[in-house]
Amino acid sequence: MRPHLSRSKRLRLSLLSVFAAIALARVHAPIQLSAQVDPLPAWNEGAARTAIMAFVQATTDPASKDFVPPPDRIATFDQDGTLWVEHPMYTQVVYCLDRVPALVRAKPQLANTEPFKTVLTGNLEAVARLPVPELQKILVATLTGMSVDQFQTQVKLWIDSARDRRWKRPYTDLKYEPMIEVLNFMRAKGYRTYIVTGGGQDFVRVFADKAYGIPPEQVVGTASGTKFEYGENGEPYLLKAPKLLLNDNNAGKPEGIHLMIGRQPHAAFCNSTGDRQMLEYTKAGKGRRLAVLILHDDATREYAYGPAQGLPETRVGVFPQALYDEAKKGGWVVVSMKNDWKRIFAFEP
Amino acid sequence: MRPHLSRSKRLRLSLLSVFAAIALARVHAPIQLSAQVDPLPAWNEGAARTAIMAFVQATTDPASKDFVPPPDRIATFDQDGTLWVEHPMYTQVVYCLDRVPALVRAKPQLANTEPFKTVLTGNLEAVARLPVPELQKILVATLTGMSVDQFQTQVKLWIDSARDRRWKRPYTDLKYEPMIEVLNFMRAKGYRTYIVTGGGQDFVRVFADKAYGIPPEQVVGTASGTKFEYGENGEPYLLKAPKLLLNDNNAGKPEGIHLMIGRQPHAAFCNSTGDRQMLEYTKAGKGRRLAVLILHDDATREYAYGPAQGLPETRVGVFPQALYDEAKKGGWVVVSMKNDWKRIFAFEP
Repeated sequence: MRPHLSRSKRLRLSLLSVFAAIALARVHAPIQLSAQVDPLPAWNEGAARTAIMAFVQATTDPASKDFVPPPDRIATFDQDGTLWVEHPMYTQVVYCLDRVPALVRAKPQLANTEPFKTVLTGNLEAVARLPVPELQKILVATLTGMSVDQFQTQVKLWIDSARDRRWKRPYTDLKYEPMIEVLNFMRAKGYRTYIVTGGGQDFVRVFADKAYGIPPEQVVGTASGTKFEYGENGEPYLLKAPKLLLNDNNAGKPEGIHLMIGRQPHAAFCNSTGDRQMLEYTKAGKGRRLAVLILHDDATREYAYGPAQGLPETRVGVFPQALYDEAKKGGWVVVSMKNDWKRIFAFEP
Repeated sequence: MRPHLSRSKRLRLSLLSVFAAIALARVHAPIQLSAQVDPLPAWNEGAARTAIMAFVQATTDPASKDFVPPPDRIATFDQDGTLWVEHPMYTQVVYCLDRVPALVRAKPQLANTEPFKTVLTGNLEAVARLPVPELQKILVATLTGMSVDQFQTQVKLWIDSARDRRWKRPYTDLKYEPMIEVLNFMRAKGYRTYIVTGGGQDFVRVFADKAYGIPPEQVVGTASGTKFEYGENGEPYLLKAPKLLLNDNNAGKPEGIHLMIGRQPHAAFCNSTGDRQMLEYTKAGKGRRLAVLILHDDATREYAYGPAQGLPETRVGVFPQALYDEAKKGGWVVVSMKNDWKRIFAFEP
């Protein structure tokens, strides 16, 4: 087994922040928005909206000098913090912790074995104090060792039933309406939209089609290997193996894009330092390119963290001042959730 | 660097067979075939043609019990020996050997260093006798160590100018016309066609779109990792690293399909023992599935090898009797190139 440090570090960091202020928000029925006239109705007028619209117009108009032929129209989207809420804890980490009781039911001896013993106490502060190799065991035990089919079934059951703590809603309700509009708008203009996530590729594939309209083959994520095996009756299946194939964070994002897509994206939408290389790679391509950084600066409607308005960074979605400076210097588009998004969630009034 | 045994073994085996009978064939101008009425005009009437047509009809007719929704219509195709000629030596191996002189011009000290010294003699029998680790050095030196862009440029120049020894034609002319018809037919019926090759993913991506109508993101192959780097002026690029990410042979084929596509194919077209697990994986899916094995049994128009008519196996495209037996037992479709293909190449009269 190869080390799995980066995700574990993220796990640990995110666990450390699990006690961040969690406020209950009002729960409302979803409202369908018509996009027949304005493709981005959840966006306020402003520089960010204008830049996105102008980019899509220029790259899809055959008369434009910036025209991009349809096969090259690739747009990549980070998931956590870009398409849905990542605060106070990555959703996949919640999944892994939630899986532990079932794991212990199947193997009762784990109840007295670390790190599972600590997880079962429900004391997340104690969980966060576990050494990294112990935290890795939780990931390995909950994300590998089963067939691909079994894993997909487990995740599907969970994603359909689990509720987040703040909004008391399915996690897939916590997708950002303005970003769903961007996905739909760009697809309508001939772009193929890919998720490029530090999260697990197999995890995100389970719900990406339903949640975002993104099919499995357009989800690039951190991937463990699989092992082709034969079952009791000789039937072949793929076993999820505890072997890291692709750590889809930082430099792993452009590397994963090359492996899985083989084309340099024309647009990338992101929100944290783990996306830096993907944004740089996107902007480095010839012709007009779009790099978008989303700033979490809305403490009321979502969360505020990062370098905006002098807010302290959190441990999730790290966004240091240096990234902000690079964005400004490199002509990246910085989106303020507070100012640029009229509506954040579809369920808002 | 991780070991690269399987491809090197294949390289060695293919080099051993490089002196297999090479006969010159007539060279004729390409003829355009109309497929307006019959989608498979290069196929003779017979069980194989009927089975392929019936499968496509049944899985794309909404009234059929075997109907497959468009997003799930995935068909995978091995390349060497399935879409184009693999005998007497894999085309990519020819490329690697052809690159050695340029390599030595760039680094003259290599001229007196093995294995490059032996390759420069042009004595392929001697090349074939080199130990496997030495042969690996040729692969590493010619397939890694340059940027992705540089590699693509090198392969493109080569594929446009190199000629095979028997037909004196570009290698991409040696694609099988009946298989091009199958690709076009299935795509017209809503299938997405993927190459799943033991050959190099980056190598095949350079010409797959032009040769087969298959875009880079639909080429799954043996893949080395890349490394995100910055050039002299700070510009980001991807360096091809000597690290094997995916050995897309044998069990690596279904594993690669899961990594890159995330769906079980409904149809797979193959020709050798390295495809066995992909065929089994395809057939193991629910509903109607199609597994096709192509038998190289036409010594006159192409090559004859494998278990047909008691022919000895060659070192390329290994196809033992056991695979033939599994095909017969498992309801796979076996295609005889001699009997089922009216025309093998587009350039035939």
